[in-house]
Amino acid sequence: MADKGTRPNRQILLVERPSGRLEERHFRAVDSTIGEPGPGEVLCRTILLSIDPANRAWMRGRTYRSQLAEGEVMAGFTLAEVVAENHSGVPVGSIVAADNGWQEYAIHPAKAVRRITVRGPLTHQMSVLGITGLTAYFGLLEVGRPEEGETVAVSAAAGATGNVAGQIARIMGCRVVGIAGSDAKIAMLRRDLGFEAVVNYKSPTLREDLREAAPDGIDIYFDNVGGPLLDTVLPVMNLHGRVVCCGTVSQYDAEGQAVGSRLVPGLLVVSRLRMEGFIVGDYEKQFPEAEERLAHWVANGQLKVLEEVLEGLDAAPRALIGLLAGANTGKRMVRVAPDPD
Amino acid sequence: MADKGTRPNRQILLVERPSGRLEERHFRAVDSTIGEPGPGEVLCRTILLSIDPANRAWMRGRTYRSQLAEGEVMAGFTLAEVVAENHSGVPVGSIVAADNGWQEYAIHPAKAVRRITVRGPLTHQMSVLGITGLTAYFGLLEVGRPEEGETVAVSAAAGATGNVAGQIARIMGCRVVGIAGSDAKIAMLRRDLGFEAVVNYKSPTLREDLREAAPDGIDIYFDNVGGPLLDTVLPVMNLHGRVVCCGTVSQYDAEGQAVGSRLVPGLLVVSRLRMEGFIVGDYEKQFPEAEERLAHWVANGQLKVLEEVLEGLDAAPRALIGLLAGANTGKRMVRVAPDPD
Repeated sequence: MADKGTRPNRQILLVERPSGRLEERHFRAVDSTIGEPGPGEVLCRTILLSIDPANRAWMRGRTYRSQLAEGEVMAGFTLAEVVAENHSGVPVGSIVAADNGWQEYAIHPAKAVRRITVRGPLTHQMSVLGITGLTAYFGLLEVGRPEEGETVAVSAAAGATGNVAGQIARIMGCRVVGIAGSDAKIAMLRRDLGFEAVVNYKSPTLREDLREAAPDGIDIYFDNVGGPLLDTVLPVMNLHGRVVCCGTVSQYDAEGQAVGSRLVPGLLVVSRLRMEGFIVGDYEKQFPEAEERLAHWVANGQLKVLEEVLEGLDAAPRALIGLLAGANTGKRMVRVAPDPD
Repeated sequence: MADKGTRPNRQILLVERPSGRLEERHFRAVDSTIGEPGPGEVLCRTILLSIDPANRAWMRGRTYRSQLAEGEVMAGFTLAEVVAENHSGVPVGSIVAADNGWQEYAIHPAKAVRRITVRGPLTHQMSVLGITGLTAYFGLLEVGRPEEGETVAVSAAAGATGNVAGQIARIMGCRVVGIAGSDAKIAMLRRDLGFEAVVNYKSPTLREDLREAAPDGIDIYFDNVGGPLLDTVLPVMNLHGRVVCCGTVSQYDAEGQAVGSRLVPGLLVVSRLRMEGFIVGDYEKQFPEAEERLAHWVANGQLKVLEEVLEGLDAAPRALIGLLAGANTGKRMVRVAPDPD
């Protein structure tokens, strides 16, 4: 059993798995303690905690990770500083990507953390140069395979992944149609990111809005949302179109069974569409090259960075609840500790 | 307006588009006449008429061809003999693939027919060496991309396309799991075609039957059926599995809206699946090579030919109605005229 030690370690537990919408009562903050790393281990201090739709999906059942258990520290991806180590080969002071979860400190075997070369602000390592940016990068380029002049539609277009996917599509010479849920987001995507067209998925004339926004049809649909929106987009797609299945955020915070697609597989045959799911981790070997390109686009101003940083670990539950309701613009994260000097 | 001529031409008309199940009353046979080909045209005598699930799909709405209109000759793919021509460049006596429809004769511009090099019995040109065999060939090899040792599941496995897809999968060194709807078909697929396992889609324990039949999971699902079966198969698929969307025959003869998939796109993300629809015509440039390989496999006994030939044009309606109810084993066709000498 691990040494509980004396170092204070605030934690947020998932005390109940929600059956419907996630609420603050499903979490509880506790003041715990943590010990020292064992041989080959590192003690990591959480600096930034990533708030992701996937956090909610993990509560629903087995995904690419096991379902979360009640009473455990809420799982979450973090950027952390190694503050102690024990023959781990990872120097104290290293910045690492780690699954610390929603707590101030965590101990991991050295092989469970990944050292990060920090370029620019640390927040960028969590947004455009982190998993979010890499997800957009590989989903669009490797799964979607855009050609110059094609039309790319992106759902949750103001979200962490969506805004980057849309911007990369523009860099590739595509026409970008964003799909978002508020006038403020729509204005921002047009004005700040230069998306050619943006439609509101709450519009009663959404199908017509989409046809108007994509007069030549849609070649790639970068789908972060799933749900009924998918069946609205599919008939607007061109022959040999590609649907990049990145996530189904519309379904994560809902009660009961997922809303399905009535047009799959029939329309896939008629329009010869390809739908393909992916997980960014499958492309890990290509991360360095992707980070290089993303950093280059940020540096030369082609790729704008949209981030929201909430302060303090205790903000995490409401940060996630708000995210699931579509409150965020860009990558949402929680600052748990200041950047190291 | 076309010359109606004096040559007797029996036709079967689609007099009503069915809202539910297709019945004989939706068709009517009429004795018409036909004239002579105009400049650049050919007069084609129907020899064999292909009976396909697609015939029913065309009644439902726009697919890759326009919806069928009431009162017109029922559409259908045929093998035909050119019996008259007018500066068309196609010699009388040529055997051609043509969309004659359900009638004894039709006139086409020369470019609308495709000359056939007949290898072996003419029926093979309609089954294993025709559109059916080519559909199985390109769907499995180009869309599914099987690797030796993988497990391939095929729905409507005793059907015209399914049996060929399964047999090609075996030739490629895959383990084949057939899905069929009767004990007789299951026995035939095991005994005559050597499929490693065959399950009955009507079984109340279908999911468990599939897991037992595919203990290492399914890598490729060649889907001719769509409908609820898709959601039964998807959870048995391995990471990076491929769904070849060939047809949705379960939906063609049903009332109302299609049954959708509740697991799409969510499970595509979790299991990184690819679903892809295709139409055989997209591969037309590769037909000669494919026909060569298929003929070779037939000649050396690796690929068995399953065919059903019904006699006489008037048999066409019940041939199609039976096909939609799953009555056929292998490729179903109607002989409208004897083979030319």
